[in-house]
Amino acid sequence: MKAEILTIGDELLRGEIVDSNKARIADRLLSLDIETHFHATVRDNPADMREVFLRASGRSDLVLVSGGLGPTRDDLTAQVLADTFGRKLVLDEPSLATLRGFFSRLGREMSENNAKQAYFPEGSDILANPLGTAPGFGIEAGKAVIYCMPGVPRELERMLDEEILPRVRKRLGGGTVVRATLLRTFGLGESTLDDELKDIAADGEVTLGFRTAFPDNYLRPLARAASLEEADAKLATVCETIRNRLGALVYAEGDQTMEAVVGELLRAQGKTVAVAESCSGGLLAERITSVPGASHYFLGGVVAYANAAKRELLGVPAEVLDSDGAVSDRTVRAMAEGVRRRLGADYGIATTGISGPDGGSEEKPLGLVHVALAQAGDTHAESFVFPLDRIRHRQLVAQVALDWLRRALLGVELLAPSIVRGRR
Amino acid sequence: MKAEILTIGDELLRGEIVDSNKARIADRLLSLDIETHFHATVRDNPADMREVFLRASGRSDLVLVSGGLGPTRDDLTAQVLADTFGRKLVLDEPSLATLRGFFSRLGREMSENNAKQAYFPEGSDILANPLGTAPGFGIEAGKAVIYCMPGVPRELERMLDEEILPRVRKRLGGGTVVRATLLRTFGLGESTLDDELKDIAADGEVTLGFRTAFPDNYLRPLARAASLEEADAKLATVCETIRNRLGALVYAEGDQTMEAVVGELLRAQGKTVAVAESCSGGLLAERITSVPGASHYFLGGVVAYANAAKRELLGVPAEVLDSDGAVSDRTVRAMAEGVRRRLGADYGIATTGISGPDGGSEEKPLGLVHVALAQAGDTHAESFVFPLDRIRHRQLVAQVALDWLRRALLGVELLAPSIVRGRR
Repeated sequence: MKAEILTIGDELLRGEIVDSNKARIADRLLSLDIETHFHATVRDNPADMREVFLRASGRSDLVLVSGGLGPTRDDLTAQVLADTFGRKLVLDEPSLATLRGFFSRLGREMSENNAKQAYFPEGSDILANPLGTAPGFGIEAGKAVIYCMPGVPRELERMLDEEILPRVRKRLGGGTVVRATLLRTFGLGESTLDDELKDIAADGEVTLGFRTAFPDNYLRPLARAASLEEADAKLATVCETIRNRLGALVYAEGDQTMEAVVGELLRAQGKTVAVAESCSGGLLAERITSVPGASHYFLGGVVAYANAAKRELLGVPAEVLDSDGAVSDRTVRAMAEGVRRRLGADYGIATTGISGPDGGSEEKPLGLVHVALAQAGDTHAESFVFPLDRIRHRQLVAQVALDWLRRALLGVELLAPSIVRGRR
Repeated sequence: MKAEILTIGDELLRGEIVDSNKARIADRLLSLDIETHFHATVRDNPADMREVFLRASGRSDLVLVSGGLGPTRDDLTAQVLADTFGRKLVLDEPSLATLRGFFSRLGREMSENNAKQAYFPEGSDILANPLGTAPGFGIEAGKAVIYCMPGVPRELERMLDEEILPRVRKRLGGGTVVRATLLRTFGLGESTLDDELKDIAADGEVTLGFRTAFPDNYLRPLARAASLEEADAKLATVCETIRNRLGALVYAEGDQTMEAVVGELLRAQGKTVAVAESCSGGLLAERITSVPGASHYFLGGVVAYANAAKRELLGVPAEVLDSDGAVSDRTVRAMAEGVRRRLGADYGIATTGISGPDGGSEEKPLGLVHVALAQAGDTHAESFVFPLDRIRHRQLVAQVALDWLRRALLGVELLAPSIVRGRR
């Protein structure tokens, strides 16, 4: 099946919006083992739209269209498709009723313009949009089936998953069924992962994709089979093999972030955490608190840039700062223990280092960082040198610290093998 | 001049990368008053590439191509363009010498593959790439001029600005010259801005674009004239008019962020700041410290989620927390004053509120936030209700807090008029 993606909208061709729908759709199609061959973007212009619709319907089997379904005069997708393929535009009464219901629940009058969203090319297969006012639709044209979706990412995503992909799967017919998932790993480089797992995708029915999403590496196992059940079983087997081999290096599956995983573990175990940050500058606290409900387990944090802050807010002894300096093993331990004690938390984590671009020396080079995790009766600390720019240095440091906390909560060893490339 | 953008690469059609080059190029073209009419993405496939090259050269005047200039077998842009338009591929000796120099500076041997990057379609206009190994090139084909750039964003951006846009400006000829800039505003909604400035773009030679980049609104004044000097003068005049009318609502021009502006002001005045955050959860500290050199003026911060952290680290009296609660005027003032005093900073800023999704009550609704700015002898505090999701609530709160600090440093009034839609 040859797929093509069309995204429609002046704003996309004026550079006002980065066109993320394209990647979103292509990624979902790959989970059905369908490659996207073309992508085009056109303005809200009937002649331009007609041109791309005609070309796409002539060369592709599946055309996925995003945008142009709204209530304004600029929203032309249904009209232009009807004109291009010689169909009438007809009212779909159930869609009109749904629209009316939507507005009455909001306590608002439905405008004339909105009624337009209930008109579709004759013979359309209407696609529900539970998150917005614009239903989608599918029509057969040329050699292709064309599915049209709203441009709003979350509406598009839901319609893809619940309405379109099941239909596409059915069109693929009795042939192969594909199931895929995403495993998030932290701590191994891509080439090491590749080495560790190179025998896994050897049977042709299972493939294993790799993607770097700094500082993580994602694995995308995909299984083909004759039935959904069989594909699911195969996928489960390959995921288990990967997890057995990589252990705690796999920290989550699907969309879950590291901070969400840590939050769930803390909540499940009834534990609390406090953070003391120097070089990560608040990023650690920001990530932990970005998770709804973080107040259940996050007590607070200190961003201790100046030495005075380390002394005053964390109780780091002046003597330690004077003799060892702010970027040192004794300081990072005192920070983690200090914030843990002052806030009465189960865990205290701390970072101190030199993120650059200035501030390195021969003894303490740019990129040097100390990380510590304090818990009752034990503080673990290590130092690394990560030769990265300021932004990525901070991201990596925060991820190491969160990963340590996750590992402590899981009761496994605190460090992943190949991150230690940076270990001092 | 009708422009078209082509982006090339399998990874773009597999959804592995969001195609940000498209928006980057379109935005730059708009600064020359050139509208992009089409955009297409194709795989690294000669037949597909040939098809889009032919179509583009037949319907557009200017074609900007990104990708396919690397040293690997997948990089086919020069070869396919030469084949498509019946040119030979010829070696450019100066490019080969530059490539050799590049590798010898790295102390590495240049591979056979890299030499490929010095071959271009006969008659090409070679474009320097000071940031990488792949030079760009321009050729005339059909009615169009086609410029090819590497896909790496920073290399592409530099080549666009230094090599391609000047050539395009020259092609636009003795006609109109265009100059544009970006003014960043915070505090007014788009419709209010539009009202305030609607007379400005009335003469046809100056246009004023608007773009929302939450929580900011950007203005894009653009001036047309017969010469560059004249266009510059016109642009300066319109910028001055806008600044006079909006005053401190314009916080920066071009790429500068709010935290960078605040940092510059603090450094110039030799002042320091400390922050105390509840609902912004570390975002304020994270933004301030994302600026290189922030350690010169940022002393530290406290992320006080639990009441114990507000008492222990900031000295908020237990009596205040008990009687008024954590989200209250007295608490936010005590937080700002507490962090300022404990760290000996010139300014203390504080936030406390309910970012959701849980935690609202009738008296203290979801979205309620108190912000305070403490300085010697004066603490200013206000409360707002921003009915936004958790992530955007935090973003807006952090921006209000940074903007207050900026306004205090400039000696102007602390709040922008229409943000107060949310004022209690």
